[in-house]
Amino acid sequence: MAEEKSFRLAVDCMGGDKGPGEVIHAVALVLPQLNPGDRLFVVGQEPVIRPCMRAAGIENHPQLTIVHSPDAILMTDKPMQALKSKKYASMIRCFELLKAGDVDAVISTGNTKVLVGAGTIKLRMLQGCQRPALTAILPRKFGYTIMVDVGANPETTPEQLIHNGILGALYANGLLGIEKPSIGLLTVGTEEGKGGERINKANLYMKEISKKMDFFKYAGPIEGFDIFQGDVDVIVCDGFTGNITLKSIEGLVHMLKDILSTRIKRNPLYIAAVLMMISLLKSLKSQLRPERFGGAPLLGLSGMVLKAHGSSNRHAIASAILMAKSALTTGIMDRAPGMLQDVNAIIEEFNENSSI
Amino acid sequence: MAEEKSFRLAVDCMGGDKGPGEVIHAVALVLPQLNPGDRLFVVGQEPVIRPCMRAAGIENHPQLTIVHSPDAILMTDKPMQALKSKKYASMIRCFELLKAGDVDAVISTGNTKVLVGAGTIKLRMLQGCQRPALTAILPRKFGYTIMVDVGANPETTPEQLIHNGILGALYANGLLGIEKPSIGLLTVGTEEGKGGERINKANLYMKEISKKMDFFKYAGPIEGFDIFQGDVDVIVCDGFTGNITLKSIEGLVHMLKDILSTRIKRNPLYIAAVLMMISLLKSLKSQLRPERFGGAPLLGLSGMVLKAHGSSNRHAIASAILMAKSALTTGIMDRAPGMLQDVNAIIEEFNENSSI
Repeated sequence: MAEEKSFRLAVDCMGGDKGPGEVIHAVALVLPQLNPGDRLFVVGQEPVIRPCMRAAGIENHPQLTIVHSPDAILMTDKPMQALKSKKYASMIRCFELLKAGDVDAVISTGNTKVLVGAGTIKLRMLQGCQRPALTAILPRKFGYTIMVDVGANPETTPEQLIHNGILGALYANGLLGIEKPSIGLLTVGTEEGKGGERINKANLYMKEISKKMDFFKYAGPIEGFDIFQGDVDVIVCDGFTGNITLKSIEGLVHMLKDILSTRIKRNPLYIAAVLMMISLLKSLKSQLRPERFGGAPLLGLSGMVLKAHGSSNRHAIASAILMAKSALTTGIMDRAPGMLQDVNAIIEEFNENSSI
Repeated sequence: MAEEKSFRLAVDCMGGDKGPGEVIHAVALVLPQLNPGDRLFVVGQEPVIRPCMRAAGIENHPQLTIVHSPDAILMTDKPMQALKSKKYASMIRCFELLKAGDVDAVISTGNTKVLVGAGTIKLRMLQGCQRPALTAILPRKFGYTIMVDVGANPETTPEQLIHNGILGALYANGLLGIEKPSIGLLTVGTEEGKGGERINKANLYMKEISKKMDFFKYAGPIEGFDIFQGDVDVIVCDGFTGNITLKSIEGLVHMLKDILSTRIKRNPLYIAAVLMMISLLKSLKSQLRPERFGGAPLLGLSGMVLKAHGSSNRHAIASAILMAKSALTTGIMDRAPGMLQDVNAIIEEFNENSSI
């Protein structure tokens, strides 16, 4: 049996809602599950991190390295401004470690916009890919689905939709363990010709590619209903639609929680009922929480970058770290460039033939 | 006091999930609330409708006219094919009555795609408007919001976004009784320059128009969160994004219901809890149900067309009919062309000045 490749990860300790202590506790949870050759780089303000490590009993752990970075990206920071004025921020430092090859992956709970913006500038694009894409892992009736792009690239081209689909399928395989992932193209109607030029073109490309590559199934055009009701593993859409859809869903869930809690306060009878239902509500919440998977990958960059939700607790962050390890083991990052090269060749050939 | 204009409405009796009887019962509920000069045209298969009218005790009501139409549009029909092969369908007949000036408005619970497609072909566009737009009336934390377009026109231009915003605000005023409605432009970030060319242009137009017209407030760019969490009365977006967002929300609500009912079946304790919470769940459901308003208008056509949900019961349809009456009383359809003319003039002037 071949020896398992060692795993080196940079963890951005700053920027999460629960503070660096929570991230350090996540690291403490993960350490016993790592191989002896694995290394974790904890990146942040050393005077803040060190006491947290002491409290968690891992201050002198041989597999840990503190990378001091005096600055931190705030949730209110804008990408370009942050890149200029916060060169020594922990998130930026993580990207530098990844770029230099000191680590294989980066995990951050910080500002998503800066993560996308700084990641795109600091790292090279993955060979064969043009633009980064943000993913979200959503629950559906049975299992989970990866939605891509949820906001990195609002004006996605047909080619970029295809790249996102292929990378999404690779991650569905590597992260969720799905053997031959299905890809659906999100649009407004499943008949041919609906949804405009971009969708038509992407649909034609996808059909052609699925004839020639067999690591995924093409489920064809799908509609909004199918995100939660369907059985598609990877949902591909432009970053404009994906971002608005995801945020509107989050807004709805918040509204439902608000309405429920207001009504419950008004009538004490409901308290008894809620107490009875508490385990049901808990299991519902955990099923609806994307953090169950800890992190959602940022696709299209030359290194593995995972975004964990800002509100992640230690268990969610720990699961993101283990997810990165298992995804790297499956060799996603090694397979991606070759796969994109094949895909681009098929698209090019298709365009040449159809323009004759 | 000026005499109230009489109200003439065509009701499509075919195509709803609950059958023509439910529509006729809605008509029976509404009749006592109409003025003596008002007229309702019930459109459908006479041999089916007449017994329903008899059962509802309104067979010979003097304010009712049966318009026999031998055919009916099914939920599976496609717009173009239906227009060709079902010339004598009730929905098509309703549009003909509206076009001929025999009625002031049409209400249908039937196939939305055919309603949009056939409406656009059978009726003229409203003067100053280019494309139809579908609306949805959604609940938010306090009150309701009109979202437009939710699927009629997937490739909406900046000018069309503006038209939809203005018409949406007119309906927010006429249907929801909001004095000076606020309009928000749905996008992926509220900073200037986010969301692409279409959004930037529409944002500039909206700012300019709101300086020169005072019947609405411009709330600026808004994000997906703000649909349910914000306080904007009219949410403007392209028909592609709007359709996917609306359907994904419907899919989520269905999934939640499914999960709940499965879990409840598994544990009898939950049944007791649910019984205790039943009034809470009911009020939640009614707050989340757009049918509370009965119908959502189809904008941009030269007549008033309201779409009621296919699953509407008699009360929802009755409320749609009364909504149409009150909206017509406020003179929406009379004010729209002048308002669009002003808006188009402002856009044209703005484009001329900014191209110098």
